[in-house]
Amino acid sequence: MKPRKILLTEKDIPEKWYNIIADMPNKPLPPLHPVTKEPIGPDALEPLFPMELIKQEVTTDKWVDIPDEVRHIYSLWRPTPLYRAYGLEKALDTPAKIYYKYEGVSPSGSHKPNTSVPQAYYNKKEGIKRITTETGAGQWGSALAFACNHFNIECEVFMVKLSYLQKPYRKIMMNTWGAKVFPSPSEITQAGKKVLAEDPNTTGSLGIAISEAVERAATRDDTKYALGSVLNHVKLHQTIIGQEAVAQMEIAGDMPDIVIAPFGGGSNFAGLAFPFLRLNFDEGRNIRCIASEPSSCPKLTRGVFRYDFGDTIGMTPLLPMYTLGHNFVPAPIHAGGLRYHGAGVIVSQLLKDKLIEAVAHDNIEVFKAGVTFAKAEGIIPAPEATHGIATAIAEAEKCKHEGVSRTILFNLCGHGNFDMKAYDDYFSGNIVKHELSEVDIHQSLAKLDTPEIL
Amino acid sequence: MKPRKILLTEKDIPEKWYNIIADMPNKPLPPLHPVTKEPIGPDALEPLFPMELIKQEVTTDKWVDIPDEVRHIYSLWRPTPLYRAYGLEKALDTPAKIYYKYEGVSPSGSHKPNTSVPQAYYNKKEGIKRITTETGAGQWGSALAFACNHFNIECEVFMVKLSYLQKPYRKIMMNTWGAKVFPSPSEITQAGKKVLAEDPNTTGSLGIAISEAVERAATRDDTKYALGSVLNHVKLHQTIIGQEAVAQMEIAGDMPDIVIAPFGGGSNFAGLAFPFLRLNFDEGRNIRCIASEPSSCPKLTRGVFRYDFGDTIGMTPLLPMYTLGHNFVPAPIHAGGLRYHGAGVIVSQLLKDKLIEAVAHDNIEVFKAGVTFAKAEGIIPAPEATHGIATAIAEAEKCKHEGVSRTILFNLCGHGNFDMKAYDDYFSGNIVKHELSEVDIHQSLAKLDTPEIL
Repeated sequence: MKPRKILLTEKDIPEKWYNIIADMPNKPLPPLHPVTKEPIGPDALEPLFPMELIKQEVTTDKWVDIPDEVRHIYSLWRPTPLYRAYGLEKALDTPAKIYYKYEGVSPSGSHKPNTSVPQAYYNKKEGIKRITTETGAGQWGSALAFACNHFNIECEVFMVKLSYLQKPYRKIMMNTWGAKVFPSPSEITQAGKKVLAEDPNTTGSLGIAISEAVERAATRDDTKYALGSVLNHVKLHQTIIGQEAVAQMEIAGDMPDIVIAPFGGGSNFAGLAFPFLRLNFDEGRNIRCIASEPSSCPKLTRGVFRYDFGDTIGMTPLLPMYTLGHNFVPAPIHAGGLRYHGAGVIVSQLLKDKLIEAVAHDNIEVFKAGVTFAKAEGIIPAPEATHGIATAIAEAEKCKHEGVSRTILFNLCGHGNFDMKAYDDYFSGNIVKHELSEVDIHQSLAKLDTPEIL
Repeated sequence: MKPRKILLTEKDIPEKWYNIIADMPNKPLPPLHPVTKEPIGPDALEPLFPMELIKQEVTTDKWVDIPDEVRHIYSLWRPTPLYRAYGLEKALDTPAKIYYKYEGVSPSGSHKPNTSVPQAYYNKKEGIKRITTETGAGQWGSALAFACNHFNIECEVFMVKLSYLQKPYRKIMMNTWGAKVFPSPSEITQAGKKVLAEDPNTTGSLGIAISEAVERAATRDDTKYALGSVLNHVKLHQTIIGQEAVAQMEIAGDMPDIVIAPFGGGSNFAGLAFPFLRLNFDEGRNIRCIASEPSSCPKLTRGVFRYDFGDTIGMTPLLPMYTLGHNFVPAPIHAGGLRYHGAGVIVSQLLKDKLIEAVAHDNIEVFKAGVTFAKAEGIIPAPEATHGIATAIAEAEKCKHEGVSRTILFNLCGHGNFDMKAYDDYFSGNIVKHELSEVDIHQSLAKLDTPEIL
């Protein structure tokens, strides 16, 4: 039997990130000013991000150098292992060959440090003293806390109050790495005070937390803001996942027919899939890349492609994206990282151009898949990661039904050690389907007054 | 700079476990019957353990074959990485070279599956349908649940009721792998019923949970019992850690002057240290091996070497061990895995013969060390693991003070993802020292009426 794990060494950590924009047949449309609705340039981002990240946000260069210092920190957990899922194949009795790339070996337990580390690095280089961000369940906040600690930058995390109270473990993890964590809304921003004045008992929302983090950065010269998904430079940093996976599949003497990843804002999917899409562009391969989203938040499979705000309040530039409407409130599923109304710009254009696919799974289906995986492979997956597993299982079952073998690769983006409550809810029958009706989606989209894309 | 991680491949997973008894100048004294106090043979263990494990318990062969099927399951996470702790060295500004072996990459997050997998394997081979065990905080119970799931054996875990109620995440982890978890004392054993009749509100203890698990195994033909530390066969299985580490240190072109591991019952320490002690025996090396225990449970540094029971109630054979007395109740420190009154037989004899050393650290010192490590290296360690870190830091600081470089290797036996409450208590100032007075120890030992060793 061939080895279960395909490993690379530290010298194999890629030296460049891959920028898919260079290869896209249709480039992303420009962002628009939230008020004037005119196209805006990179300078509009200056108050929030360091110049090097803004350059990465708009570059059309195919390759972007990874600084040595970033590669050295990556080496704490990278290259990550690629597994042949012998246990899962046996459990499914499928002729398919299943592989997964495991990003849960990072210190914070997900793929997020792949971008938090370079983001902190560029901020440090430009003399920034403090980075602010928002976090829901805490995956992104803890990844940024870890990165800021390494560069001795202050880190302020605005954590949705409901999660702050209900999920204290991620908060303590951030504290351990030296970050300050505020329940949002807080008294330290005007935005937070305003919300608290209107409703002192609010449990907060990601939209409010974004407003607080952005305000802190916009009003202080020594402070910038960081985002964990959606933006181009975030996706760029994550391509390290797929580049390693391409090398590992070559070592395995195999190449995927299908590449799968969970989909929230797109960084997880982009990270694994873009380097395989590059093979489609450069070598004329025909690798199917499938984004896997929750059926309770189905922007790719049931949303519209139009300009929309990145936040709930309407402060950010308008971005061309698949969206359910910026006022859409996703059901409170445990996969907090997938509860976002829109898809990043690059991924949206790729879907529009039919260069990638998307599927949705309901909440019960993904937990069933997660438990099947945990029993077959040992690792208990994060609720976000179970979506990719559900798609992989569906494709493997299709192989069995059709009597053909295909090679399937998915991104196991994080472990579920901080999510055991979710599994308890599943075992106790407290997980529900959260299917959206046509009426629900129509009502959310009907409210949109943002520019359409013709 | 040399690589941070020294990796092995699956074909490097050792093919044999190392049995240190073969090399010991003074062999362990025999166990005694709990009532007659006469030496007992292996047959006394038959109601509780499968024959192959009993053979391993008493063998004097230097090497024991690891079955291929066990090696294949090991390959889910083994070989584990060995890290050069560049970040910690820098943080301490020490001339010492520090390495750590990281066992937290296993599915249950500690070194425990190294023995739960072969234990489940041998039970399966001998037709056993069900394995019972006790667990405190849940590290051992979850490792056994993981292993039993792989071999399709039922797993029953008696979890101390206080932990069952206060630490539900480990319980859900066991459920995910299919184990049944009972709060102990339970209504399903005579032992449990008896305790509940006397005190319906008891929060349980490890001693009671052991009695329940043993009773279930002793009264059913298809059921055996499993133990996660102390016994010889458990230590034998763990030597896979140190064997890998020896090979990894050779790749690093280095060899430790000092090997350190946390100490509870001894399996963690034995796992890393015994293969280095073999180099002392076989090659005349002079590697110092240091067991690191909590000062609130200091059996090695302040206990006595005499016969004592393995459990609180006095049901097990009498074992020759360093002990604080089987009635000793350790303070409720977060490092639950180190709260045990005695030390395993082999380790006790080695300490008696001055072939190993022991040190103790107080509760505040270990958390300070744990946070220093998390900030310098990224990984947040389990409370048990912080004891080894504290010893490593103390030795590295000694190097700095003396102006010499030594090579230090310690066992990072598990991650702290399920222990964030402990860190919260530390940050909130709720961790206390729990130092034991001479009077405390004297009072506990004065109660002992077990045979002395002359």
